[in-house]
Amino acid sequence: MGTINIGLLGAGTVGGGVVKALGKRAKYFKNELGLDLKLTRIVDKDADRFAALPVDDAICSGDAGDILNDDSISIVIELAGGTGFARTFVLDALARGKHVVTANKALIAEHGPEIFEAAVKAGVSVYFEASVGGGMPVIKAIREGLIGNDIFCIRTIINGTCNYILTRMTAEGLPFDDVLKQAQEKGYAEADPVLDVEGGDTGHKTAILASLACGGYVPYGKFPIEGITKIAKEDIEFAAELGYVIKLLGVIKNATSGLDIRVHPAMLHKGHILASVSDVFNAVLLEGDAVGQILIYGRGAGEMPTASAVVSDIVDVARNIKSDSPIRIPMDYYRRDREIGIIPTGQGSGRYYLRFTVCDTPGVLASISSRLSDAGISVASVMQKEGAAEGSVPLIIITHSAPEHGVRKAIMEIEKEQYIRAETRLIRIED
Amino acid sequence: MGTINIGLLGAGTVGGGVVKALGKRAKYFKNELGLDLKLTRIVDKDADRFAALPVDDAICSGDAGDILNDDSISIVIELAGGTGFARTFVLDALARGKHVVTANKALIAEHGPEIFEAAVKAGVSVYFEASVGGGMPVIKAIREGLIGNDIFCIRTIINGTCNYILTRMTAEGLPFDDVLKQAQEKGYAEADPVLDVEGGDTGHKTAILASLACGGYVPYGKFPIEGITKIAKEDIEFAAELGYVIKLLGVIKNATSGLDIRVHPAMLHKGHILASVSDVFNAVLLEGDAVGQILIYGRGAGEMPTASAVVSDIVDVARNIKSDSPIRIPMDYYRRDREIGIIPTGQGSGRYYLRFTVCDTPGVLASISSRLSDAGISVASVMQKEGAAEGSVPLIIITHSAPEHGVRKAIMEIEKEQYIRAETRLIRIED
Repeated sequence: MGTINIGLLGAGTVGGGVVKALGKRAKYFKNELGLDLKLTRIVDKDADRFAALPVDDAICSGDAGDILNDDSISIVIELAGGTGFARTFVLDALARGKHVVTANKALIAEHGPEIFEAAVKAGVSVYFEASVGGGMPVIKAIREGLIGNDIFCIRTIINGTCNYILTRMTAEGLPFDDVLKQAQEKGYAEADPVLDVEGGDTGHKTAILASLACGGYVPYGKFPIEGITKIAKEDIEFAAELGYVIKLLGVIKNATSGLDIRVHPAMLHKGHILASVSDVFNAVLLEGDAVGQILIYGRGAGEMPTASAVVSDIVDVARNIKSDSPIRIPMDYYRRDREIGIIPTGQGSGRYYLRFTVCDTPGVLASISSRLSDAGISVASVMQKEGAAEGSVPLIIITHSAPEHGVRKAIMEIEKEQYIRAETRLIRIED
Repeated sequence: MGTINIGLLGAGTVGGGVVKALGKRAKYFKNELGLDLKLTRIVDKDADRFAALPVDDAICSGDAGDILNDDSISIVIELAGGTGFARTFVLDALARGKHVVTANKALIAEHGPEIFEAAVKAGVSVYFEASVGGGMPVIKAIREGLIGNDIFCIRTIINGTCNYILTRMTAEGLPFDDVLKQAQEKGYAEADPVLDVEGGDTGHKTAILASLACGGYVPYGKFPIEGITKIAKEDIEFAAELGYVIKLLGVIKNATSGLDIRVHPAMLHKGHILASVSDVFNAVLLEGDAVGQILIYGRGAGEMPTASAVVSDIVDVARNIKSDSPIRIPMDYYRRDREIGIIPTGQGSGRYYLRFTVCDTPGVLASISSRLSDAGISVASVMQKEGAAEGSVPLIIITHSAPEHGVRKAIMEIEKEQYIRAETRLIRIED
């Protein structure tokens, strides 16, 4: 049994978890799986991080070249993050015939074609289970466990920070800003939370899942992404009164007419299986033509859950190396020339929650109702609340299924009226 | 690309699903995965079943020898079920160097060591994803996706028939017998429901999951199995009043002291993640030292969900054949000489729901309370209801955590009293 040498770039939280998990399981991998895995190099530009790791100082270094130039290293773990140095490092490693395991969702979502083309060219593979849903084996499920299916729908709650914030806003009736601050204090949100709360992180993960499910390249940046920063505590309260909860969803619906992919806050009926996914937990709800609905639920982030996914990828790659089948899971469909056609924003249909802020004067409900009716939009329910201040009141309307562009056009028309006092809020309802 | 020939034994419901799914996905497997899979022989003793299949009559036969003696067939799918002919067929196929894919939980649970020893000897593999949880990729999750974890706890709702019956008993307040009859009429329960409702099917699946999680042989028949036939509608009602639901669980807790494995009805708090798994749905809740809790939820049975699992196994085996690595996932630990030590029944601890049926006379509560107290069993809550008939009343007690054998001994002592009118019911509470 030949030893398989591993190089790790990035000794932060997840890197530390990988060192621990590999150490704890090394004997099992050797004795039970016949895989002798050895971490022979750890590189981080911040030397202070090495002190906390249970490894020999001699394998620690600040120079990524110590991994790239070491021909004995056949698997490289990239945990540096970002799309700058991580990208050139991964491309360089691939060009040198090293397999890559990465947790870097931005890298795969934004530079997937370049990465996979380089891997195919070099005859090596890139594994990225940890990039989506932390320890949940969702990429393996799509690429292997559900390979007998055409997966036509995926809906995910895949960003722990947003789910924590929405859960706390719901439970405590607090506004977004207050809860974000709490989350930052507890370490559930970054000091710079933009990538999480504006939906970018969910977008990266959703783009990756869509590419896997559709068998082609789904470019990040070509589909609508809306975060949770505009969700008012009133919307959460009104949703609750109507029997709904608000979650940030990644939605993928793959039909012959094209791919409907989007990230946005959505209202889910309280009985919906995703409605009870709370706090920092993540869930991926897949629908396949054979299997029906499959839900995978777990911790989508954190030191050890993410390390769990990285280690499972290392074992997969090691099994591939051992059997001399480096490209067990082909990824050459993830090419620029196989870009999947995305249905343009607004061409979809659905049910909508609309919150108008209107003058508390007679005739407003009649005016809005008739405007919607004229546009062919059927109203499922209406809720008018007493005004909070300055004579303006919220008017909540839930529509029946209607074309999104029609609804948005009707809102634009209605907003020209004098009785509208603030921007209208639209939240999609997912069934 | 060489064609991989497949032989199918069993053209029933699942067999038909496999034929359909393979046909639908063949082009994808060939073009995208480079796997040319061809179903070249279908065997069933009931020739009437062939008519419904979209295949050439020439590949259909009533003689299993047509698969076994055909050297061009390298993958055999066993969907005959049972442990009689299926066992000899699988052993014969393995001895001839054919890989086996099976959905047969009884075969794996009761004859696993013999099967896997034969596979190791012949240098081929046995895949059995469809044996547990239908289309849910739970075996793949344990053996691959969560390989970086010591999985120390698994709790499952894994029998759709029982879950459907308990869900309907809860929703409609009907007794077991009435709901079983309904389930049989709807096709959710077999004409002979014993293997389902007495817990045997859950036991088979739980034994398989335990073997995978523990890395050794967990023999079916050496751990307690209790079905749902004794669950009274009163127990479901009282559970609901106390904030619980009753589910049939497979429980696996692996500790250094040994393996605690059992199948029994259990009370779950309404907020428990498994409590909301209803109707015919299945769920497997895994806990690993790195990943924490992972839930996989879906349809655990039926034509296409089970076919989905069979097809994913076929693709895995085909990938192994293509890469000339027949035993990618070693199963040689599943041996008789690696039997896992099971903690004897009653040596565990837990919280218990006790329903005594007592005379409606003064002093009974005091007597039972003091008996339990004398035995060191602490009472968490008590509920006494008005009597239904003949002066007997139900007295419900929820205990704090206590050793099971102590609780059972105390019940035996209490049952010697004159005021006891019927057998006492004990249901474990899972946290």
